Amino acid sequence: MTTGLPAINGDRLWSSLMEMAKIGATAKGGVCRLTLTDLDKQGRELLIDWAAGVGCAHEYDAIGNLFLKRPGRDNALDPVMTGSHLDSQPTGGKFDGVFGVLAGLEVFRTLEEHGLATQAPLELTVWTNEEGSRFSPPMLGSGVFTETFALDWAYGIKDDAGIRVGDELARHGWIGNAIGNHPVAAYFEAHIEQGPVLEAESKTIGVVKGAQGQRWFEITVLGQEAHAGPTPMAMRKDALVCASRIVQAVNAMGFEHAPHACTTCGLIKVIPGSRNVIPGNVWFTVDMRHPDDAELAAMAGELHDVSTRIGQEQKCAVQIDPFWEFHATPFDRGCIDLVRQGADAWGYAHMDIISGAGHDAVYMAGKVPTGMIFVPCENGISHNEMENAKSEDLAAGCQVLLHAVCGKAGLAG
Amino acid sequence: MTTGLPAINGDRLWSSLMEMAKIGATAKGGVCRLTLTDLDKQGRELLIDWAAGVGCAHEYDAIGNLFLKRPGRDNALDPVMTGSHLDSQPTGGKFDGVFGVLAGLEVFRTLEEHGLATQAPLELTVWTNEEGSRFSPPMLGSGVFTETFALDWAYGIKDDAGIRVGDELARHGWIGNAIGNHPVAAYFEAHIEQGPVLEAESKTIGVVKGAQGQRWFEITVLGQEAHAGPTPMAMRKDALVCASRIVQAVNAMGFEHAPHACTTCGLIKVIPGSRNVIPGNVWFTVDMRHPDDAELAAMAGELHDVSTRIGQEQKCAVQIDPFWEFHATPFDRGCIDLVRQGADAWGYAHMDIISGAGHDAVYMAGKVPTGMIFVPCENGISHNEMENAKSEDLAAGCQVLLHAVCGKAGLAG
Repeated sequence: MTTGLPAINGDRLWSSLMEMAKIGATAKGGVCRLTLTDLDKQGRELLIDWAAGVGCAHEYDAIGNLFLKRPGRDNALDPVMTGSHLDSQPTGGKFDGVFGVLAGLEVFRTLEEHGLATQAPLELTVWTNEEGSRFSPPMLGSGVFTETFALDWAYGIKDDAGIRVGDELARHGWIGNAIGNHPVAAYFEAHIEQGPVLEAESKTIGVVKGAQGQRWFEITVLGQEAHAGPTPMAMRKDALVCASRIVQAVNAMGFEHAPHACTTCGLIKVIPGSRNVIPGNVWFTVDMRHPDDAELAAMAGELHDVSTRIGQEQKCAVQIDPFWEFHATPFDRGCIDLVRQGADAWGYAHMDIISGAGHDAVYMAGKVPTGMIFVPCENGISHNEMENAKSEDLAAGCQVLLHAVCGKAGLAG
Repeated sequence: MTTGLPAINGDRLWSSLMEMAKIGATAKGGVCRLTLTDLDKQGRELLIDWAAGVGCAHEYDAIGNLFLKRPGRDNALDPVMTGSHLDSQPTGGKFDGVFGVLAGLEVFRTLEEHGLATQAPLELTVWTNEEGSRFSPPMLGSGVFTETFALDWAYGIKDDAGIRVGDELARHGWIGNAIGNHPVAAYFEAHIEQGPVLEAESKTIGVVKGAQGQRWFEITVLGQEAHAGPTPMAMRKDALVCASRIVQAVNAMGFEHAPHACTTCGLIKVIPGSRNVIPGNVWFTVDMRHPDDAELAAMAGELHDVSTRIGQEQKCAVQIDPFWEFHATPFDRGCIDLVRQGADAWGYAHMDIISGAGHDAVYMAGKVPTGMIFVPCENGISHNEMENAKSEDLAAGCQVLLHAVCGKAGLAG
């Protein structure tokens, strides 16, 4: 399958990215193109124009996911889908999401340019509200498509101004008839890594094997509030000293479950707190991630054990409340292999990697054989106007996407 | 000097305390008698009545400190002073401050009852705004008396409603002519410990040897904000992990400089902070105390060294900013000895102790030979409506106060 595929046009991909980045461009070089706004509409219309230029029709489903369709030789076959999102964070970058969409477009353009047809039809999808910054939760469009979320519930979600998702969709004429997931043979998504690993390892392609499971907790430590002056060290029940030992233990747990575990305490508060009062009440959060649910469950057990032990040693009461949970999502072995083969075939340095962030592909993976292709981003920075990536890395990711999509859809004779 | 002194009347002391506690009594059994309010005036007027009953005149100085004067045999001698404060925290207790004032009154009453005169005159002082909860800073009256604070500056301090100290003093008619400290032979203050040591050690009397020096710092840790998912443990610059190691080190330092060191981190903040973002900026406070300034300086040096080392190990920048400083205040050896002798003479279990909290006596100690007498309070709790103390312990503290005051003033043969 690796033979006979043309090279994609990296310059064309880059110039499309730069053209799309003008829509919602910020003074600091980033992009603000919030979901379901007029700017989001401008972005989608530009894409629809480009796709029409290579013979693709478009349609919407009931949550406004946009599908650009390239017929195959046998349209009775389930389509092979690729895509990502065009909406951005309020101070977002030029590549997050957009790269996956325009890499798909570049795949279509390359096939068209070389007069190549696939056996199965192809679909390029733009998911509605991946970012979740205007309407929460994120990954709303793929969540509805995969029946993770109910459509009516999604319509009722409001932004800070009280505007409903359903009303914005209607305003743009983006409410199609289709509800829920139509049959899809496979889904591939190219994306910047949004982390520092590929750059640090000097790899061009990340072969994404799946997404981390996540467990979030809230921990409350109750000690004894007391005056910082007259209370000797040995008689204290200092909730912050106790909490800071647990923070250390949480961090150590990440290293103990290397290389895939991630453990983070992102928020901490002394309640009510005063400079000269021994803290009696400390609240903090724990975010634990691992690509293996069993390992993640073991980590949750360790969190409970170590926190309880430290609490006893520090004479504090420690309460651990589960806050949120998301199962680990392994990707499809066949899709993973196609991505790896594509990187090998084109001689790109690559490595297996786990996605730490959420992506539409994670919801898709629950329904459809799914793979992802990561490319490096500068310093691992994303969700930031400074977000940057190299044209040659983006081109490589697009080339691997062509390989994977054609591998699944089959090149017609 | 220990012979010939009568027993004070512990029941009378207790009933005076309970009577005074009715002024500003709270539903939960505490007291809210904020400085310079009408309730504060009621409290002072009750005291003035009681003192008049034992032949004491009263006068105010320019910051409203109230002096109740019991003449001696030789009124050319400098007076021996005792006292404390009648103002309370918003949710304060019945004993903090009030005990020292009413113990002084009980000393006067006991002397009067037994027809005893002292060589030097005695003064019972009620300091203005010791608590600092309505008008900041605390210990304002003793601070002006000892010329720690300028009078005009003190007049200009406003409460949350914008009311000035000077205007409240004028409203009550509490602005006397005297400015600054008149000569005083010695100052003694009886007080509940506001800490748990005496109770834990089963001692009735704490012989206070001085007040801790204090150094307050603010520490800022700068790491690298990053996504909690895609950022491997080894590539992180987690400012909270770094800060929590410093919190541990600060706590350990308190134990290393036992038995007198106290080290506390009372506040901590992740800025801006999010559950799934590795903290890039953490701010926290350090309160370090020790009765020996040289030792305290050494601790400050260690704080700098250990924080810098931890910062390097955690790949974070650590900035340490001094915030406030208060020198250690040793009390007068003669006054300390009188307190200890009094406890011995009356057979009270006693121990030497250092004051961790601030008191008017700490300012006085900078100008005048000073001693303090601590008695236990239940569970070490103070600045709380639950504040409690045993009648027999309070009586013992008052008895030792009588001994010390008469020891300095001399009983007239």
